[in-house]
Amino acid sequence: MFESAEQKHEIDKEAFRKEEPTLREELLDAQFDLNEKKEFPVLIVITGIDGAGKGAALARLYEWLDPHTLRTVAFDQPTDVERARPPMWRYWLELPPKGDIGIFVGSWYHEPLTARIGGKIDDYALAGTTAAINRFEQMLADEGVLLLKFWLHLSGVDRKSRLKQALEDESVRHVLEHRGWKSTYKAAMRVVQLMMQQTSTAAGPWIVIPSADARYRDLTIGQTILQAVRKRLAEGRSTAGATAPAIIPTLDGKTVLDTLDLTQKLSSDVYRKQLSHWQQRLGELTDRKAFREIAVVCAFEGNDAAGKGGSIRRVTMALDPRRFRVHSIAAPSDEEKAQPYLWRFWRRLPAKGHVAVFDRSWYGRVLVERIEGFCSEADWMRAYGEINEFESQLDANGIVVVKYWLATSSAEQLRRFKDREKTPFKRHKITDEDWRNREKWDAYAQAIGDMVDRTSTTAAPWTLVEAEDKKFARVKVLRTLCERIETML
Amino acid sequence: MFESAEQKHEIDKEAFRKEEPTLREELLDAQFDLNEKKEFPVLIVITGIDGAGKGAALARLYEWLDPHTLRTVAFDQPTDVERARPPMWRYWLELPPKGDIGIFVGSWYHEPLTARIGGKIDDYALAGTTAAINRFEQMLADEGVLLLKFWLHLSGVDRKSRLKQALEDESVRHVLEHRGWKSTYKAAMRVVQLMMQQTSTAAGPWIVIPSADARYRDLTIGQTILQAVRKRLAEGRSTAGATAPAIIPTLDGKTVLDTLDLTQKLSSDVYRKQLSHWQQRLGELTDRKAFREIAVVCAFEGNDAAGKGGSIRRVTMALDPRRFRVHSIAAPSDEEKAQPYLWRFWRRLPAKGHVAVFDRSWYGRVLVERIEGFCSEADWMRAYGEINEFESQLDANGIVVVKYWLATSSAEQLRRFKDREKTPFKRHKITDEDWRNREKWDAYAQAIGDMVDRTSTTAAPWTLVEAEDKKFARVKVLRTLCERIETML
Repeated sequence: MFESAEQKHEIDKEAFRKEEPTLREELLDAQFDLNEKKEFPVLIVITGIDGAGKGAALARLYEWLDPHTLRTVAFDQPTDVERARPPMWRYWLELPPKGDIGIFVGSWYHEPLTARIGGKIDDYALAGTTAAINRFEQMLADEGVLLLKFWLHLSGVDRKSRLKQALEDESVRHVLEHRGWKSTYKAAMRVVQLMMQQTSTAAGPWIVIPSADARYRDLTIGQTILQAVRKRLAEGRSTAGATAPAIIPTLDGKTVLDTLDLTQKLSSDVYRKQLSHWQQRLGELTDRKAFREIAVVCAFEGNDAAGKGGSIRRVTMALDPRRFRVHSIAAPSDEEKAQPYLWRFWRRLPAKGHVAVFDRSWYGRVLVERIEGFCSEADWMRAYGEINEFESQLDANGIVVVKYWLATSSAEQLRRFKDREKTPFKRHKITDEDWRNREKWDAYAQAIGDMVDRTSTTAAPWTLVEAEDKKFARVKVLRTLCERIETML
Repeated sequence: MFESAEQKHEIDKEAFRKEEPTLREELLDAQFDLNEKKEFPVLIVITGIDGAGKGAALARLYEWLDPHTLRTVAFDQPTDVERARPPMWRYWLELPPKGDIGIFVGSWYHEPLTARIGGKIDDYALAGTTAAINRFEQMLADEGVLLLKFWLHLSGVDRKSRLKQALEDESVRHVLEHRGWKSTYKAAMRVVQLMMQQTSTAAGPWIVIPSADARYRDLTIGQTILQAVRKRLAEGRSTAGATAPAIIPTLDGKTVLDTLDLTQKLSSDVYRKQLSHWQQRLGELTDRKAFREIAVVCAFEGNDAAGKGGSIRRVTMALDPRRFRVHSIAAPSDEEKAQPYLWRFWRRLPAKGHVAVFDRSWYGRVLVERIEGFCSEADWMRAYGEINEFESQLDANGIVVVKYWLATSSAEQLRRFKDREKTPFKRHKITDEDWRNREKWDAYAQAIGDMVDRTSTTAAPWTLVEAEDKKFARVKVLRTLCERIETML
């Protein structure tokens, strides 16, 4: 990992003075093109050995680049707002939009590194974390983010000479000796190497920068950024990714939807009793003190007119309005379009003690976007894995993920469409698009089957809801929700 | 204030059952029109006497309305992220977008009320706070927000009977007696009355709801919302506001810009020394521990090609990249267009210890928007007052507001435009629009004069920068910034 960086690398003052003006001009030029085209963002992670000059390198970048479309985020101790969400939340929210350059100081590497060095986790746990990091960085790469991870390195020789200088100061020596710095350093570097080996992937290779000589260090960083941006601008978005085998329809045309018994129904009497029972139960569960330590994300999907709205109302009526929000997912805003696909769901994650209800959700990618061709096959093919990763992070951090597919028969949908057209105050609920979607019934059935097969996980199972009878559906929705919350509590 | 509410108001079960379905349907219908047109948001503040049923009234609204475009925010103790900003910040960020309904529980009334009741502030301080609240609510009204402030009231008789019930419980009685509830209640109600009298304005009148009878309470709230939304939908945005006398050009055509001595310049030698001196000073000031308790907002305005970008670079080069961000202000995003004008600046406010640099700013409203007619005269006329209010809130909360107008002569601008056209890597900096703006030089001079006259306050004075010589301008910018920060420290 550090072999080249252990060599002596220097650039003299004169050579630097000669190269710098050209580099600066070319960097500014590339930054301007990047921002004008707004095709992708650049995300730079700067980390490395203490004393290798992270701050100085950063300052040099600000001498060269235009600060208008450049932002540096230093991640310190998480705030209480951040602590109420999964650890990756704060990194998601600070991602630079397309056309901008973002620099992260203290990235997602910081916490697992210090935890392992401090002995709070072992090598196995570290490996689990680095695997998650790799999936995250793969997602960034797939979304077109140009990710550059710099490790600023000092060779053994340089480290010793810097240390020697430091040790001349009596007080510094005292602190270092007290901390057992020699053995600490060795142990720390073992963890760093391990971590870097595990996370140097095609999507996010580590770039080790020999940093003993500031001029060499800064020119190397500057040239690396320049070349990477220029290359990507020339090539356009990489279209790799579609390496997974294509999905083919089931040979007999059957899908999971065929397993549903749509004849199930409830009488009005039983419905009233059960609805009231489960609503009370939901209110009671979400009022418990323990609920303040968890959160709920509910995704409602289903065919048009399957009764999502009505089911959502039955859920929210049982909740304290101060602790839930309903998000209707339609077209993304322009700020959302400048970010990776899942960004708009990350920004809507509930804090602890809260419930977020999504009327349509992140599954749009593998349903409507797949069928209407709004994204490429590679995009929706990788979405299954990204969604599983997203949901497992929520689950791991105490967020109950409940996902419903509300299903009716095609005949029942037709009946409801016609009914809506007749009822004045429901007319706005039926559009030409709904009729067009109806013609794609079979394609949707196939997509739903694939979706359920690929994203029903132990952390976040799908609940298929027989919604031919609205009353039966509403009670099943509420009961499932209560059971899932209870398990988490 | 509470005269009518002290009367007995009741609606029997049957009458309620008769009225409710119609009201619900009409409310849903109005909510749908509101969301389809997206012309204005509705902001509902719910507050009142403990025990008057705020929670129950809220729950009823959720039975009647569609939760998709309705959100309730309960403001509790501020988080540490919120504490690092001015108190109004969290209310700004949670404003509902156009087309939505937002309900605030625990609004900007809560803190001053409890502070006064707890004796932490006196009546004079309370009056200062209510005056600020009135300016804020006036701004909301001017921006088209439909603001409905409900006070849920219990008459003296009802209060006593509820209290009597409560007192039958031994433990409750003990607590209440210990707290001296009788005198506390009287004192509290005096403050509430005072506050409500001071903040019942044309822009945001208090609506007192007799709440002893839940049915009467809920129907009244529902009807009030319905009527208000319907009325506004029918009338469109109110065009009141332009009551201020029109601004006329100075009779002799002179503006503050004529007072500037544009011949001031620095030799390269002096420039280098002074630049380095003030940059070091700025670095040193922002590194101080005391700086972590304050923040800086810098607004750079100036004629095209006056050198804003170069001055900004000289400032940011002296700062730690982890603690500043540069915001280029151009067209608002679609999320920003759905909010009051100043929202996009509130969301960019720096946390304590940070610097936010704005390349063009909230002054766009009284400059380009005024001159190009992008907003109505009423809009830019009221902007002066709103901006002063905004900046005084920043100042009062430890945020140094530094505002620069960089001025060159018309001849110098022409020279720079021509120069830019000749230099390849500066060509993108000159557009047709820049040439068109140049033709409006005199109109801009007048607008700048009005802006400086009306918004140069003790809290946030304008610094006019003679920018004919770039070196002179950069040093003046840095020196002023250092001096302002030093004063705040």
